[in-house]
Amino acid sequence: MDNRIEKQLSFSLEIDKLKNIFRQTHLSDNGRNENDAEHSWHMAIIAYILKEYSNEEIDIAKVMLMCLIHDIVEIDAGDTYAYDSDALQSQKTREDRAKQRIFSILPAEQAKELIALFDEFEAYETAESKFAHAMDNIQPLILNNSNNGGDWREHNVTVEQIYKRQSKTKSGSEKLFEITDAIIQDNIKKGNLKL
Amino acid sequence: MDNRIEKQLSFSLEIDKLKNIFRQTHLSDNGRNENDAEHSWHMAIIAYILKEYSNEEIDIAKVMLMCLIHDIVEIDAGDTYAYDSDALQSQKTREDRAKQRIFSILPAEQAKELIALFDEFEAYETAESKFAHAMDNIQPLILNNSNNGGDWREHNVTVEQIYKRQSKTKSGSEKLFEITDAIIQDNIKKGNLKL
Repeated sequence: MDNRIEKQLSFSLEIDKLKNIFRQTHLSDNGRNENDAEHSWHMAIIAYILKEYSNEEIDIAKVMLMCLIHDIVEIDAGDTYAYDSDALQSQKTREDRAKQRIFSILPAEQAKELIALFDEFEAYETAESKFAHAMDNIQPLILNNSNNGGDWREHNVTVEQIYKRQSKTKSGSEKLFEITDAIIQDNIKKGNLKL
Repeated sequence: MDNRIEKQLSFSLEIDKLKNIFRQTHLSDNGRNENDAEHSWHMAIIAYILKEYSNEEIDIAKVMLMCLIHDIVEIDAGDTYAYDSDALQSQKTREDRAKQRIFSILPAEQAKELIALFDEFEAYETAESKFAHAMDNIQPLILNNSNNGGDWREHNVTVEQIYKRQSKTKSGSEKLFEITDAIIQDNIKKGNLKL
């Protein structure tokens, strides 16, 4: 086997580990915790289905690839819950180290390409990155809303916290923020979010 | 909420169920059974990483979307193990019914588009479909090989059966079939595949 394809297959095997990184979000029907691989798959499809609502013109193939790879660093760095302020502080250092180790398994130019795509997602400046972040927010929102806000109730999430996080949705899609806002308001009424 | 986006969000929630459809394949490090959502995520990334080995020019974005949606019908139809000949007979009828129900949750033109993409995958005629099928074969092969052929041993898979299945890999990629062949030969030597 030549060295190039060996590296590509090693990377392909390495990322299997993302299926064992579990999130705080629960599957619909009050199911088990979701893992990062499932979350990424779900985000990529939802991105395709909802692409018409992006505020700006987007390259949807790029958004989808971004969704698929955006959590790979969590193989080493672990999942950081969006409302865990201590863990959020060390997140960048942990994820940068992971990014270098994992993507560098690939041939150099592929590593460079995927690191650039990951960095673009993180920098949150391009239209594709903004829409991908909107997906990263709306995907768990859909699940959590279907479970009567169970994840918010478990973690005592406040209205202020959720609006702070969901402000990113607005930068990607005004329309999806409207929907998000309606869902949040409904969950406030139901007592699922703390004032 | 308008009717169009309501349909799109209903579909987005419905496909969450794919995370509960488990396959015969086990995760690396002799892990648990893999589910369809994880498998689809893994296939889509591997397709991107290995795209240079396609026999024909491909639209990689189309291949990736095909990988992401190709198993959604299994929400209703269940997973059919590649070496279960009884189940394979009724598979098409079960999957056609599921395809209509699930994709029709979407607005009509999106349902039509995704059904056409699913049908293209199944028909196995276009370059994209052939490469996506190669991914559907190589993804579990990589996992199973890393587990010393555990899934083949558990199901007493024969050399004839595996070469019949893997012939699809060759139509998508001669190069990946070479690798597949080397992996199969190695597993024959190890006694993981029955002669």
